Amino acid sequence: MCGIFGYVNCGICRERRHILQVLFNGLRRLEYRGYDSAGISIDDCLPPSSSATSSTSFSTSRSPLVFRQEGNIESLVKSVYEDVAAMELNLEESFSDHAGIAHTRWATHGEPATRNSHPQTSGAENEFLVVHNGVITNYEVLKETLVRHGFTFESETDTEVIPKLAKFIFDKAHEAEGDQPVTFSQVVLEVMKHLEGACALIFKSKHYPNELIACKRGSPLLLGVKELNEDASNESTLNDSKFLSKNGQPKEFFLSSDANAIVEHTKKVLVIEDNEVLHIKDGGVSILKFDNARGIHGAAPSRPSSVQRALSILEMEVEQINKGNYEHYMQKEIHEQPESLTTTMRGRLIRGGSSKAKSVLLGGLKDHLKTIRRSRRIVFIGCGTSYNAALASRPIMEELSGVPVTMEVASDLLDRQGPIYREDTAIFVSQSGETADTLNALEYASENGALCVGITNTVGSAIARRTVCGVHINAGAEIGVASTKAYTSQIVVMAMLALAIGGDTMSTQARREAIIDGLFDLPNKVREVLKLDAEMKELAELLIAEQSLLVFGRGYNYATALEGALKVKEVALMHSEGILAGEMKHGPLALVDENLPIVVIATRDACFSKQQSVIQQLHARKGRLIVMCSKGDAASVCPGNSCRVIEVPIVEDCLQPVINIVPLQLLAYHLTVLRGYNVDQPRNLAKSVTTE
Amino acid sequence: MCGIFGYVNCGICRERRHILQVLFNGLRRLEYRGYDSAGISIDDCLPPSSSATSSTSFSTSRSPLVFRQEGNIESLVKSVYEDVAAMELNLEESFSDHAGIAHTRWATHGEPATRNSHPQTSGAENEFLVVHNGVITNYEVLKETLVRHGFTFESETDTEVIPKLAKFIFDKAHEAEGDQPVTFSQVVLEVMKHLEGACALIFKSKHYPNELIACKRGSPLLLGVKELNEDASNESTLNDSKFLSKNGQPKEFFLSSDANAIVEHTKKVLVIEDNEVLHIKDGGVSILKFDNARGIHGAAPSRPSSVQRALSILEMEVEQINKGNYEHYMQKEIHEQPESLTTTMRGRLIRGGSSKAKSVLLGGLKDHLKTIRRSRRIVFIGCGTSYNAALASRPIMEELSGVPVTMEVASDLLDRQGPIYREDTAIFVSQSGETADTLNALEYASENGALCVGITNTVGSAIARRTVCGVHINAGAEIGVASTKAYTSQIVVMAMLALAIGGDTMSTQARREAIIDGLFDLPNKVREVLKLDAEMKELAELLIAEQSLLVFGRGYNYATALEGALKVKEVALMHSEGILAGEMKHGPLALVDENLPIVVIATRDACFSKQQSVIQQLHARKGRLIVMCSKGDAASVCPGNSCRVIEVPIVEDCLQPVINIVPLQLLAYHLTVLRGYNVDQPRNLAKSVTTE
Repeated sequence: MCGIFGYVNCGICRERRHILQVLFNGLRRLEYRGYDSAGISIDDCLPPSSSATSSTSFSTSRSPLVFRQEGNIESLVKSVYEDVAAMELNLEESFSDHAGIAHTRWATHGEPATRNSHPQTSGAENEFLVVHNGVITNYEVLKETLVRHGFTFESETDTEVIPKLAKFIFDKAHEAEGDQPVTFSQVVLEVMKHLEGACALIFKSKHYPNELIACKRGSPLLLGVKELNEDASNESTLNDSKFLSKNGQPKEFFLSSDANAIVEHTKKVLVIEDNEVLHIKDGGVSILKFDNARGIHGAAPSRPSSVQRALSILEMEVEQINKGNYEHYMQKEIHEQPESLTTTMRGRLIRGGSSKAKSVLLGGLKDHLKTIRRSRRIVFIGCGTSYNAALASRPIMEELSGVPVTMEVASDLLDRQGPIYREDTAIFVSQSGETADTLNALEYASENGALCVGITNTVGSAIARRTVCGVHINAGAEIGVASTKAYTSQIVVMAMLALAIGGDTMSTQARREAIIDGLFDLPNKVREVLKLDAEMKELAELLIAEQSLLVFGRGYNYATALEGALKVKEVALMHSEGILAGEMKHGPLALVDENLPIVVIATRDACFSKQQSVIQQLHARKGRLIVMCSKGDAASVCPGNSCRVIEVPIVEDCLQPVINIVPLQLLAYHLTVLRGYNVDQPRNLAKSVTTE
Repeated sequence: MCGIFGYVNCGICRERRHILQVLFNGLRRLEYRGYDSAGISIDDCLPPSSSATSSTSFSTSRSPLVFRQEGNIESLVKSVYEDVAAMELNLEESFSDHAGIAHTRWATHGEPATRNSHPQTSGAENEFLVVHNGVITNYEVLKETLVRHGFTFESETDTEVIPKLAKFIFDKAHEAEGDQPVTFSQVVLEVMKHLEGACALIFKSKHYPNELIACKRGSPLLLGVKELNEDASNESTLNDSKFLSKNGQPKEFFLSSDANAIVEHTKKVLVIEDNEVLHIKDGGVSILKFDNARGIHGAAPSRPSSVQRALSILEMEVEQINKGNYEHYMQKEIHEQPESLTTTMRGRLIRGGSSKAKSVLLGGLKDHLKTIRRSRRIVFIGCGTSYNAALASRPIMEELSGVPVTMEVASDLLDRQGPIYREDTAIFVSQSGETADTLNALEYASENGALCVGITNTVGSAIARRTVCGVHINAGAEIGVASTKAYTSQIVVMAMLALAIGGDTMSTQARREAIIDGLFDLPNKVREVLKLDAEMKELAELLIAEQSLLVFGRGYNYATALEGALKVKEVALMHSEGILAGEMKHGPLALVDENLPIVVIATRDACFSKQQSVIQQLHARKGRLIVMCSKGDAASVCPGNSCRVIEVPIVEDCLQPVINIVPLQLLAYHLTVLRGYNVDQPRNLAKSVTTE
């Protein structure tokens, strides 16, 4: 949704220029989460120049400074340097202690505009500043109260109530307690008591210089810690919770919505949990756990308890989050699918050995397979691409498990409050593991007693932590907003899941072994299908000016049609729609004419002859067809060269969606580049949808 | 798919002009089933004029004559009269016995063209002529065989093999049996043995003048019988199977794909069943039942048994199939929804009485309610609009029954061969009761032991006959290809079904009674919402030139979004897409800009606040919104007149889809008329999809 970032240097001198660079780089890493507007706050020390007149809005009370700008990160960077020059702010000025915050926004409440950008402020003096990822659902009530107390609001955001509430609480406390000052964390704990909804927050305050408070509920937030004298080989301190307390060492702290913005600085991180409030001060971090339940029931919460937490090590390399030789992340991620699929399957396929039987080993699941096999339903729950991946895996799951599989879009399940019972196995699919709707559905299914299984790409994510068991897809960091490699890895994991669930059935053994052989060979086949790159670029050139595109699929490749259309919709901004081929005559056929381009997926499987009939009928309506077929079938699906053909390698039918999506990913990519749109940051979207 | 029609007059003089008119009128009634091309065959008596040169292809061997024309019925009528004039055929010539056939086509195999029109012929002599509704799946094999025996094919249709096969069999029989002639029914029985797939067929032959053979497997076919001396009040003969035998009375026989083309002549009909072969000859009808199973297993079938059948009475008035004061059927059917809904509910809602309790009585279901309540799943199965109606009813079914409801598009269930078990209740929804995919899914579910329940608008239809129990929606004949009144009646029937299934639960009694009250008042509310007609026309004028339209809905109104978009797609030929609002951020939001029109359904229910948030986010993206809200909510959903609003009456949440679809039906209707398209016969579509 949004990306938030904080940087604290303690006991080590950093020039203002360096601090700005760290904040900007942090935002660049988080930019995929939102790119409507951005902003930062750093400390001032010089009186502001009165000549400052610029398009960027900034507040220049004694401290801190706020810079905000509509548009992407580079717009912010440019305008900050212009403003800094206009203000004659010294970039060489050095701070031995400093706390900066930054934000990149994906607009939900209030249009993309400078006034709606973060940091949001308590008022003209910037006494309290907040960067926020999430949605405060009760902000209207809070706003009314604050307005009655004399606050004036400048933005349409839900966030603005937070810094204003902080100031209100701070002022009240000062009136009441006189000289005994409240701490920064006391103020924030009180603020948190009044907030409903999802949030990850970083607070900065003029009253508490060089301190930051970070807290979260729902949305993700990580802390990275870098000791500057630390010996790389000495990792013994890692599991020592004292590490987070003051030890006199110079230190840098990084707060971020995800690991991407931290890994280049340090791999030592703390995944902040819901209702924890972190107070970074004087080189130490104290963690208070807020007892949310009490707050909700209206009773005055007792003093929150202090907790000790150990750091963990990121399993991630900086290269993963670079583009390498590619121009765009999406392009890179499409092309690295042979490798990401290999990693997904590593150590999980068992072939040969003494018994010579082929099987699948999913460590996290083996204790639960019996229960899953006895379920009355398997319910796949996800959103967007993850839902499509589950849909692609549904037929093989039904075939091998014999258990009926129900598909649920997470938000729809919640809207309907659909029945879920103890006999159900609910499988939650989410790349980030933080998708808000999926997470809420998980909570709902847990409450109803279902066995909850997670399939995510993010170790330590909320879904990974809150499910009883699950499988990591190990596809590596995915940064392009349009999911590609995570989709194919999700399908492979769910196919392996089907193999594991059905692993005790004699009658399907030959079928299972054929699929396992197919999995072993799958990365090579993906490598082969990637060779269609140039051909798909050529096709994209033909389609560049189209307004609409239909994609027809059925059976295993119904999901391919939906997902292919979703890719084109997301990045190429073309109205494309995936259509179940069997529904063609019940409406969509009316749209067919000589002009509308139609992709028909007709690779070999049990539905092939039905798809041939669909192609004939589309021909009868003079449809403008692009047919995806198995290698060697061009002449039969498209007699007399009457349409364009994409030939793809044949694999085991249930794995075919992994192959078939690749040309459509390439098509969407090239269409986008040719149409001049931003591939990695499609309009209006953000990668992890961490609010409802 | 296609419409077939036959007319036989026995012992009563009819001029050629009259015969033509009966055939043309029959086709006009069936035109909604297909309008790509049409054709007829009547008998010749005069030698053809050599001056006949026209665009219509016709064969003029001694007899019979064939006229075929690309385009709709009126094109055929025009060209027939031109040809007749050119041939100097006498329209006043009178026949005391005559058999004519006619066909209107919806192209599946082979593009719309004269050569692919029906009647299809055995060759130059028109020895055998066939009109066909359905798809012969093994036609390629048959064609190869016939080509080897010297037949040449002119069309790309699957149908052409049928008359050629008939000739082949007829010739063979003559060679073998010499002077002992084969009967027409023997020839057709032999033909039927070789055909696979779905069909309703009428055969006419030069060798069997004034006779017709009708037979069917899968596709629907009716026989209407009119005795010309019959006494209207004397219905005693009706249940007398002798009625179908010769009794010397002058008679007219009408064969038709549905009742619409028969009701204006007679209400006495016979619904022909699968594998029955009707032989109309000399004023009598003999029925032979073909034992299909034996044919399939390859053994020579024994002589088919003769069966006796009783006529039934059509419950249908001629007015139902006229447009009345409306310009189009779709318009008429939208506006008659208050009445059709009243009929749907008549006698089924029980309020007051001695117990004062409110309840629902569905006669056809009451013996099965206990079983349904104990199901492990309820599976809704349908296609197109019927699927959407089921989707609209899903939440209330889940709420009142507590049983998880799985949605299945019929073709997808078949493609996947998804698990269905004895503990499942499968509910099949189809307006016509003849939808091929739904029918195949019914067969599949029956084989797997599920309890099969039917919801159709057509008494005596295949689905009505083959389900264990069910409910008729009683919406009256629906002729517009785009389903409107059947949709709302289907929802109401399924809501009543939910009330009946949940009828034994104490905790939901108040809820159920509120819904029953809502149902009583529903026709009035629909009357109220129909007053938006002018407003929707105005909106249609604004949208007339758009290429795309999105419709966002959630919860109860997810189905409304899908169905509203489907209407616009079907008739206005605009690429409209229904989108689950909860999925907005997972892709579709990328399409949003100042230009793309977006309808958001945000009437009052438990999801209202979530929809408000969706509207805010769309506003933040400068979306061009048309918001449908409950009466009085305009200001709150659309502050500052920032968007267009459609205010609709509030009804009980689960009935709201019945109200909300009406403005979208009107929008689709007006868009179509304004764009100059044919409302009742949308491009490429046909009403009942009786083939896969």
